[in-house]
Amino acid sequence: MANSPKPTLSLLISLLSLLSLFPPTLSSAPKHAPRFLGKFSRSNNKGPLGAPRYKYETRYFDQTLDHFSFSDLPTFRQRYLINTEYWAGPDRRGPIFFYCGNEGDIEWFAANTGFVWELAPRFQAMIIFPEHRYYGESMPYGSFEEAYKNATTLAHLTAEQALADFAVLITELKRNLSAHACPVVLFGGSYGGMLAAWMRLKYPHIAIGALASSAPVLQFEDIVPPETFYDIVSHDFRRESISCFNTIKDSWDVIESEGQKNNGLSYLTETFRFCRKLESADDLSNWLSSAYSYLAMGNYPYPADFLMPMPGNPIKEVCRKIDNCPDGMSILQRIFEGVSVYYNYTGTVDCFNLDDDPHGMNGWNWQACTEMVMPTSSSKNISMFPAYDYNYTSDEEWCLENYHVKPRPTWITTQFGGHGFKNALKSFGSNIIFSNGLLDPWSGGSVLEDISETIVALVTENGAHHLDLRPSTAEDPDWLVEQRAAEVKLIQGWLHQYFEKKKTVFDM
Amino acid sequence: MANSPKPTLSLLISLLSLLSLFPPTLSSAPKHAPRFLGKFSRSNNKGPLGAPRYKYETRYFDQTLDHFSFSDLPTFRQRYLINTEYWAGPDRRGPIFFYCGNEGDIEWFAANTGFVWELAPRFQAMIIFPEHRYYGESMPYGSFEEAYKNATTLAHLTAEQALADFAVLITELKRNLSAHACPVVLFGGSYGGMLAAWMRLKYPHIAIGALASSAPVLQFEDIVPPETFYDIVSHDFRRESISCFNTIKDSWDVIESEGQKNNGLSYLTETFRFCRKLESADDLSNWLSSAYSYLAMGNYPYPADFLMPMPGNPIKEVCRKIDNCPDGMSILQRIFEGVSVYYNYTGTVDCFNLDDDPHGMNGWNWQACTEMVMPTSSSKNISMFPAYDYNYTSDEEWCLENYHVKPRPTWITTQFGGHGFKNALKSFGSNIIFSNGLLDPWSGGSVLEDISETIVALVTENGAHHLDLRPSTAEDPDWLVEQRAAEVKLIQGWLHQYFEKKKTVFDM
Repeated sequence: MANSPKPTLSLLISLLSLLSLFPPTLSSAPKHAPRFLGKFSRSNNKGPLGAPRYKYETRYFDQTLDHFSFSDLPTFRQRYLINTEYWAGPDRRGPIFFYCGNEGDIEWFAANTGFVWELAPRFQAMIIFPEHRYYGESMPYGSFEEAYKNATTLAHLTAEQALADFAVLITELKRNLSAHACPVVLFGGSYGGMLAAWMRLKYPHIAIGALASSAPVLQFEDIVPPETFYDIVSHDFRRESISCFNTIKDSWDVIESEGQKNNGLSYLTETFRFCRKLESADDLSNWLSSAYSYLAMGNYPYPADFLMPMPGNPIKEVCRKIDNCPDGMSILQRIFEGVSVYYNYTGTVDCFNLDDDPHGMNGWNWQACTEMVMPTSSSKNISMFPAYDYNYTSDEEWCLENYHVKPRPTWITTQFGGHGFKNALKSFGSNIIFSNGLLDPWSGGSVLEDISETIVALVTENGAHHLDLRPSTAEDPDWLVEQRAAEVKLIQGWLHQYFEKKKTVFDM
Repeated sequence: MANSPKPTLSLLISLLSLLSLFPPTLSSAPKHAPRFLGKFSRSNNKGPLGAPRYKYETRYFDQTLDHFSFSDLPTFRQRYLINTEYWAGPDRRGPIFFYCGNEGDIEWFAANTGFVWELAPRFQAMIIFPEHRYYGESMPYGSFEEAYKNATTLAHLTAEQALADFAVLITELKRNLSAHACPVVLFGGSYGGMLAAWMRLKYPHIAIGALASSAPVLQFEDIVPPETFYDIVSHDFRRESISCFNTIKDSWDVIESEGQKNNGLSYLTETFRFCRKLESADDLSNWLSSAYSYLAMGNYPYPADFLMPMPGNPIKEVCRKIDNCPDGMSILQRIFEGVSVYYNYTGTVDCFNLDDDPHGMNGWNWQACTEMVMPTSSSKNISMFPAYDYNYTSDEEWCLENYHVKPRPTWITTQFGGHGFKNALKSFGSNIIFSNGLLDPWSGGSVLEDISETIVALVTENGAHHLDLRPSTAEDPDWLVEQRAAEVKLIQGWLHQYFEKKKTVFDM
């Protein structure tokens, strides 16, 4: 497989940016990166009749840009969504449900995190969805253009600063509402789940517990094997059909050798119906790789319109298409049929576009080039993807060249714990749920076994990327209903314990 | 007592800077501040024959200036002292004793923290004394002058950055020495004790326990009454002699009315033997107030040369002088006799100087004007000092005027815990010793009762400011010997527990 397309950093970065399935906007990323994800960012907070499904007030908080230094920097307006409709109020110590906003427009996360909205009335909780700095409307320096101008303006886009934003925001809100005795419960999915777990660890005085859904907190340095991600995607296909898995595995060489032929790129462009001619076979390979990874993340048991409109169990559907092609159909045509389940489920797309995102620098790319350095490889044997060994040095070069910033690959583990993370959790942490679906490729970098009595792993064999945070549907399988019920019971337990303590013990 | 001199911010700041009994250098502070403490900064690492008492190698680590942002700032050289003479080495998992350097030259702390040096051979431990950024030789931007140039260059002088320095330094050292399985125990006194406790909380994966001696972690916002500090100083005098206490309490009005007379300042200058004429009576009051506070902190049971050469039980000595003056001696002369025990115990000083410190901006003043906002008042009834109500607004004005920086008085409590700190400690922390002597005015802002089985308070009735960290002496009273023995036993327990876990459980 010499010279075959590899999952390059650009692809890895765009996959990392899928942590919460949020679209990267990559014009400054190398050309291999998929560019078509911007469409995901639309808010889909719509109920059956077009009215907003969830109601909230949009507010803004004057936030410190650099919490850990006293530079003379301008503050910025952090957006947050708030709903106090169900809240029991300060006197009755109504809980505060706080979603740790991640890398994207907070309205989009609010719309896709139905679990929190459904839970709030039951717990008479206030709901807060704060936006992560440098995303959505929460832009330092007044605008996206100014905030994303260069490495200096982007400097303060870090997880630690975002956690401090949350801590300051909660503290100030509670002060203003005389709600200091109201317990805060954190929620988060994907990168937001990492933030929720880290926040519970670093700010235990601020929140009493955290539901960290699909949070790959161990996907750093060599804590988990870097092959984990692609091995799981591959497994998701293999479990549906070995012939489907093999067709995909065999396709990369075919694509590459086709790309080297005269008129090969034209042939590939035509076969895969791109609107404009492919510039390299790699572009196609990356386009396919990213679809497979998204399919694995969004491999939900019912049709969903989270990433793209997709059928239920979409990988089964992709493999059915690939396997059921008439005999004699070429491997590339089979692949096209399969991937159309992802890119064209509605059947309305005439041609595909690799370059439909006009934006400049992308927030998650910056984060991946600074502290969120999550090594990913593709194994030669288990994976259906082209083999690729993680190479930090080339990633660093890419970041220096594209973002003029040098990553600090050991910083997150120094800050939040690396190999000793679980031990630290065990002796220090409490009240954290790590929920994961094993179909989710990020699950391999998360916590999959109970750490202690109060730090528990809820693992579903057939779940995908933070499925539990989505609104409940009539099609929810029993195991999903049970998973959510288990989460509710644990959260209830935290609150119960908190109120019991308040009853018997004076605030020390 | 209208118009009587009040413990102004300048005085409070200079007292705060005594947290570790380290001299402030205050030319940019207002003129009321005492200026004579620079002499404390000499390193006294001398054994009986003039040879260094403690042996170490001095090394430098290339440290990140801003851990929490990716600004393009220069790194700086962090100094650290290291001794591996007794260390059992990585294979035998020799412990690492890590002193959290505080606001001063690290050699001075190393010389005055004999406890760690005496403990190391017994535990076959490595000793590391890292210097706090912006102190001693660990200057960003290459020099003291550049680092202390203005608010922009001082911006990164914060406790969080210092903790991150420690975390990165430990992690890198362990990596270089293949010592990742070696347990780290933290030590710290005063502000350094606060750092040790906070570090154990924020970086539980990095250190297994912390001895936080005389660490006023609760001296923020309104967690403890702001009068605590001066009330304890006052109590220290009152317990020795009520007449002494009353003489001091009465002296402020006398000083003030004297200062308002014609030639009054000349008279005061002469009576107190200042080398240059006093500019105001306030200067004298602050000079006296700070002596009383230092005496309370350094109220050790044996003669010591830590702050100034002082006799054992120096407050008893001061009061003996004040009380035993011949009848008819004026109140001011009595005060002078008393305070001479502090300022002139060796009897070699011809005249006293309020302005003997040529330095510019002072590190602790900056910290007190940014995040280390520790309210202090003087009560009308209990205190022997002039009554003074803490006034944040005037402090803020002072900081804006003098340092061009606005304090964030609620940041430390947001970051490390405020009213809920003890509860957070209880449910999250473990393996912290809060040791305090009740004669120490900072003890009122520390943790004085056991929080849990593993977060314990060791309180001595007759101890002063982190006496337990000092080298043992032949004159140590039994209670001090017992306190240190209790500390050793607890540290032993942490290590034992760590090694037991390592034996039975794989590193998760």
